[in-house]
Parts: sequence; C-alpha cells; structure tokens
Amino acid sequence: MKLIIGNRAYSSWSMRGWLALKAANVEFEELVVPLFDKDWDERRGGNEFAPSSGKVPVLWDGDTVIWDSLAIIESCADAHGQEIYWPEDRAARGMARSMAAEMHSSFAALRRELPMNVRRKVENHPISDEVKADIMRIMELWAQARALYGSDGDFLFGRWTAVDMMFAPVVTRFVTYQVPLPRFAAAYGDAVVRHPHVVEWIELAQEEPWVIEEYEPEQK
Amino acid sequence: MKLIIGNRAYSSWSMRGWLALKAANVEFEELVVPLFDKDWDERRGGNEFAPSSGKVPVLWDGDTVIWDSLAIIESCADAHGQEIYWPEDRAARGMARSMAAEMHSSFAALRRELPMNVRRKVENHPISDEVKADIMRIMELWAQARALYGSDGDFLFGRWTAVDMMFAPVVTRFVTYQVPLPRFAAAYGDAVVRHPHVVEWIELAQEEPWVIEEYEPEQK
Repeated sequence: MKLIIGNRAYSSWSMRGWLALKAANVEFEELVVPLFDKDWDERRGGNEFAPSSGKVPVLWDGDTVIWDSLAIIESCADAHGQEIYWPEDRAARGMARSMAAEMHSSFAALRRELPMNVRRKVENHPISDEVKADIMRIMELWAQARALYGSDGDFLFGRWTAVDMMFAPVVTRFVTYQVPLPRFAAAYGDAVVRHPHVVEWIELAQEEPWVIEEYEPEQK
Repeated sequence: MKLIIGNRAYSSWSMRGWLALKAANVEFEELVVPLFDKDWDERRGGNEFAPSSGKVPVLWDGDTVIWDSLAIIESCADAHGQEIYWPEDRAARGMARSMAAEMHSSFAALRRELPMNVRRKVENHPISDEVKADIMRIMELWAQARALYGSDGDFLFGRWTAVDMMFAPVVTRFVTYQVPLPRFAAAYGDAVVRHPHVVEWIELAQEEPWVIEEYEPEQK
C-alpha cells in the first residue's frame, strides 16, 4: 500500500488522506511529490504518480486506486472499521458525515486566501469578509458538535474521528494566520495540534527541503 | 423520515439526495422548498427547514439530520446496505468512491455556467474553455469506469450505483444544453434519463408551479 502526497508543509488534502491511513494503524509507504495542492483549485495537468486527476493524495493498494481524501476515509472505514472513523451514535454519525462533506465541498475563500503552511506563523494577514463568513460557519459547526457530542473527549465528537482529520488543516491555518477564536474553538485547536499524528506530520514538514514562494505569504 | 429538497427543475443536489433515498426503497416524506440550489455556490442565508447550512437537500430521520447529498448516500449505504450504492469489487469501489467525491468537490465551471433545468432544452448555449475542460474530465472518468467495470450493464459500473446518482444531474445538463458527446457517453446518458427514478424526478419537475428567471437561460 502506497500513499502519494504533496508537500507536507502546504498540501492540506494530503494531510487528510495521511491522517486517515495513520488512524487505520496499517503499514504504508509514502511518496512525496512536491508542489501539488488541491486547495489551489487549479488543475495542474498530468502527473505520472497521480494519473487520475493530477491531484494528491492518491492511495494505491494493489489494483485499487483512490484519488480523493474523503474517498480514502470512507474506503478505510469500509476496510478497517467504521468505528475508527465515525461516531457510533446514529445522529452523531449523520452530523459527522455532513460536516466532513461540507468541509470537502466548501470554504473556498478560506482555502484560497489562507493557504496552509504548517511551518510558518504570519503576522497581520488580511482576512476578507468572505473568509470571515467561512470562519463563522466553521465555528457554528464546531460548537454544535462539541456541545451535542463532544463531552467525553477533546475532539469534535469526543474521541478523534474523520471529522477532526478533515478539519485538522483548517486548525493549522488558524495557527499560522493567528486567527482569533472563541475559547472553546481555541481549546479544540490545541487538542488537534497536540494529537500525535498531527505532531508527526508537522515535524516531518519541518525537514522538507522545498520552499515554494507562492505558498509563503508575506508579513503585512 | 423526511427529505427537504429544492425545486426539482433546478436543484441538482436535491436530485442526488432524492435518488439516494429512492434507491434505499424506503418510505419517506418530501418537502419542496423552492429557490435553493447549492450549485449556485452562494450562501443564501438561513432557512427554517435547512437550519444547518441553508442548503438542500436535508434528510431528517428522527433526531438525525444530514445536510449533504454525499453524506446522505454514505449514510444510506450504512443503514440500508453498501451493495445498493457501491460496486462489490474492491478496486471498482475505490474508483466509484473517488469519482463520487470528485463530482462532489469539482466541476465548478460546469455547475455555474450550465445550470440544471430538467424542463428545458437550450439552443446555442456558450461553452467556455473551463466548461470544456470539465466535460473532458467527466468523459475521461466515464470512459474509464465503463471500460473497466461497466460491461455487465448500462451504467458506469454496470448496474445503477451512487456514482450514477451523483452524475445524473450532469447528464440532464448535457441534454438541456445539447452538448455533443462521444457515442459511449451519449449511450450512457440515454440509460440514465431512462432510469425509472430519473424519469419520475423529471416528470414531477414538469408539474412544479415555480419559474425562476435566473435559472432559465436565454436561447442564443
């Protein structure tokens, strides 16, 4: 089993797929292909390692090829156990799946204007009204999950689930751009960046040799 | 169990959620809330029936609320049987999940510039280069699925699956805007619009009283 990922510093979708595989607790090889990031919402043409969409992450497992992070999560849940990825409670699971899907299709302004860079802290980055609306919606989702289902742990649904994997790159953006958050959200973000898989991802990102200017926002 | 949907004529995401419930072969109530369409990629503010995101479709089932069409599909698969929604073969299933996820997050130009309207045929609609690129990618996906896994039926993976539900609104756009397609894709599109659930959706759309100008493209 092999996971093709982009730069750890910049590739938020790669981080999601990698967190999903780590949660499965299976051995896998990694291949880092620098420069690709689905968050930039551009088709960057073909790539020999990511033949299906030119995007990362891509999971190769025998003759199975999965080229989307949410599809990787659902496939891992199929193969390794729904309970690793989703809450047991039926209503909680419905909400969790909806939140993961909303993260998958939405928040374009946040993704475009606050690109992930887990190696940096950026001062005085401009936050547009569109980004503010995205952040407000994320706060609403996090608050609902924490209030309804989060009481037995530090994560959105208590223990670490697929929804936290989907939102982990958003948490790193809030850290990078020093976005002020309500206390409950700051506490949740702290728990995410202390999760051992997230810690490992960020540590490995420090060691990457590549620095790509367009992903390195200037201080204002 | 109640499904809140937008206008049948225009709301492509509603169609996907509705097709998923029909495939489960369970009884459900419907509530049509005119005017909302996630494809317009706008947040249209709050709505008493869709409190979570202001978007449709929303599935209410007891205390479970699911507000995304892909989440509705995966939840139905959980509850009513993976085999209704996804191919049995592991490699086929990985490809199917990837295709459904790509439909969920991509093809913004096609969705924006060729809005769904299952009641209309539109002559000489302009097709931009961005839309052409979306169509080419869809042809590539359909061709791969049909060639690798479609030989025992008329649909992408042979029998009707969640991937066909995700692409059904795209098929109706190709009909509405009379997009020229390669022969294999035209044959697949014919099979989709003849599927009894799709037939029922389109018939019910004819009876809707609402006509919303911004969803009614002019002839050129």
